[in-house]
Amino acid sequence: MQAIKIGLFGYGCVGQGLYETINNSKNFEGEIKKICIKNPNKARSLSADLFTTDKNEILNDESIDVIVELIDDAEAAFDIVTTALKNGKSVVTANKKMVAENLEYLVKLQEETGRAVLYEGAVCASIPIIRTLEEYFGHEPINEIKGIFNGSTNYILTQIFSKNTNYKAALADAQKLGFAESDPTLDVKGYDAKFKLSILLTHAFGINVPPAQIINLGIDHLKPADLEYARENELEVKLIARAKRIGDKVYGFVAPQFTKADNRLQEVRNEFNAVSLTGEFCDEQLFIGKGAGSLPTGAAVLSDISALSYDYKYEYKKHFNQATIKFSSDSLVQVYASFDNPDTIDLNDFESIHEKYFSFDHSYVIGNVCINKLKDEKWLNNKNLNVVLCENGVEDTLGKLCVEDLKAEVSELKKGHDLLVKISR
Amino acid sequence: MQAIKIGLFGYGCVGQGLYETINNSKNFEGEIKKICIKNPNKARSLSADLFTTDKNEILNDESIDVIVELIDDAEAAFDIVTTALKNGKSVVTANKKMVAENLEYLVKLQEETGRAVLYEGAVCASIPIIRTLEEYFGHEPINEIKGIFNGSTNYILTQIFSKNTNYKAALADAQKLGFAESDPTLDVKGYDAKFKLSILLTHAFGINVPPAQIINLGIDHLKPADLEYARENELEVKLIARAKRIGDKVYGFVAPQFTKADNRLQEVRNEFNAVSLTGEFCDEQLFIGKGAGSLPTGAAVLSDISALSYDYKYEYKKHFNQATIKFSSDSLVQVYASFDNPDTIDLNDFESIHEKYFSFDHSYVIGNVCINKLKDEKWLNNKNLNVVLCENGVEDTLGKLCVEDLKAEVSELKKGHDLLVKISR
Repeated sequence: MQAIKIGLFGYGCVGQGLYETINNSKNFEGEIKKICIKNPNKARSLSADLFTTDKNEILNDESIDVIVELIDDAEAAFDIVTTALKNGKSVVTANKKMVAENLEYLVKLQEETGRAVLYEGAVCASIPIIRTLEEYFGHEPINEIKGIFNGSTNYILTQIFSKNTNYKAALADAQKLGFAESDPTLDVKGYDAKFKLSILLTHAFGINVPPAQIINLGIDHLKPADLEYARENELEVKLIARAKRIGDKVYGFVAPQFTKADNRLQEVRNEFNAVSLTGEFCDEQLFIGKGAGSLPTGAAVLSDISALSYDYKYEYKKHFNQATIKFSSDSLVQVYASFDNPDTIDLNDFESIHEKYFSFDHSYVIGNVCINKLKDEKWLNNKNLNVVLCENGVEDTLGKLCVEDLKAEVSELKKGHDLLVKISR
Repeated sequence: MQAIKIGLFGYGCVGQGLYETINNSKNFEGEIKKICIKNPNKARSLSADLFTTDKNEILNDESIDVIVELIDDAEAAFDIVTTALKNGKSVVTANKKMVAENLEYLVKLQEETGRAVLYEGAVCASIPIIRTLEEYFGHEPINEIKGIFNGSTNYILTQIFSKNTNYKAALADAQKLGFAESDPTLDVKGYDAKFKLSILLTHAFGINVPPAQIINLGIDHLKPADLEYARENELEVKLIARAKRIGDKVYGFVAPQFTKADNRLQEVRNEFNAVSLTGEFCDEQLFIGKGAGSLPTGAAVLSDISALSYDYKYEYKKHFNQATIKFSSDSLVQVYASFDNPDTIDLNDFESIHEKYFSFDHSYVIGNVCINKLKDEKWLNNKNLNVVLCENGVEDTLGKLCVEDLKAEVSELKKGHDLLVKISR
């Protein structure tokens, strides 16, 4: 087999990880021929000859077999990947946002050009979940896929509970140690986990669900009082992405959830990720591994490059062979919703309320709400409101349609709050 | 793609699981053309036309593409598999003993005939570990592979600790519920886990290690006093197969081990298996899934059949490309060895002793011993002796050579025993 010539875009964390894994691999016949970067003046450990700022020097080079795209900018990445395919070159990428937002088009383009796009590194880095879904579960109906898909937030949450600290402090520590970005939005608001879930929906269920259709709640609204509630009830919090098939519907979303000690996902700590798959024949499979980092992601990319050397492509078997399953957010889930001021919340949004607690500075309601409701501005982007899925938040409710029959208890809660205010004076 | 015609040997638990998964699969183009069984008079749910007792009716049938071998008898299985390959047919098998004991020959025969033998179902059923090692970790140096490879013993051990019972009672319950065979020897003595470890050594490290070279200790010598020791020290027991590379040596064996609550493997319960892989780049990967059962194993077999339809073969990349790594049992491990009578044990066998306890009816020694020593008859098949690896049994010792310098403390222990006997009178 001839040595693979690689054209690499980006030489940041993952690009350097790829370079290192190639050098330390056994039996890998291939080399990086050229690296396209944005800033030529940055200090780098490799010879300047290896670098270029002109993308076409790589995209038009006929001796280059495989394009590897490892840059941040999702739009530039899309441009590189699609051009490469049209130029007859297969691609490996790790850009979850770009792949999730353009997957339908990328599948079509692969078909048209006969070239492949592989993206194992985009979904939980070194956990070989896409390859496993394609190769191993291609014929098995999947019933549920869920897990911890974001290492940054899992690191923060692990530190919160093991060091008995709060969200702000844990985030600051994580940033200092490089486990969280200076702008952590995509991670802490659950977008990153959502992009990965969106990609997995295609490979697990054969349904194309653009990220915009999936609801994501993050961990950035966690207040000290919420953490106290958790500790008092011997719970932790994990940010979980999930999708479950019930009948011909798949319900999916990203949300923080309270977990008990017997929940396997609670054992997944710090920057580790986990993917749990439940198939029709196999029952639950659990994969735990490092979801990020230059070497784990570099290794995932190398594995994809290696697969391209024998013309591997994703077959998207389920995608091309199913017509009946549909994605839906029209189902109840049980949530804990906490707030300072009762006006923050509209109790009419709850299908049923199981528990209410209010005090001066911290109140919460536990009840069933429709996933769709969580999309409303007053829920989703309300920084005065923190929503956490209860520990059995989907077991009894998922699949139950939201009923328009709502109970109105706003005045009761308001009266209680006003009374307390009176008493305090 | 033309529909695959399958010739099946065996219609027991896994054969029926395969039949059911084929019927319930999406997108699988294939069917079982003929099934060879031993006993034609057994009541079966399928039409009698489908069955034959003549293996050649299948092996010589040119219209049959793939042979699937799912019988118990390892020798007959070897005969079927090798004949199939020589007749130009690829094979799927789930027979761990047969594959482990003949792997070197099977690799050679695959090369000579150009046909493939796939055996995912032989190693932890639905956990796609071989496919993952071949496809995903083919270029990554593996540092350690370990796990719980046997569902029967894991079920028994889980029941012992969750129901606070003993080995005999838990074994009897397991047999009643079908989680253990009426003759449980291969499982409870650790042979089954050893066969799987032997196979994984080829795919993970590229070394061929016949089962006879690997030491296996089981759980069948666990006494109530050992379980009490565990409970008092907040430990459980798991039967763990492991292999770890240190420098150019790989040390491996199967043994029960004491585990603390923070050991991930302790969370793996009942019939679930787990495989933990530590690679040079990926750090620890953990796979947890059902290691046995008709559907999980049937699904693994179906996945292999499906792979054969596009000419998939194991590449044995590491096997063909390495010459320097060697398997070794010449290293220290820290064990707990318990016995009724001090004459059972020869303290000279210990490199160093850390703890000794003796009483009328139960004594134990904790110390470092050479893995090789455990092969001696007086250790291995001594039913008066129970050996359990300590919870940190390999961390400080593995890789340390056994030194011939031994301490003689037999008389001290004997004196103490005799004294106690005197006092009791």
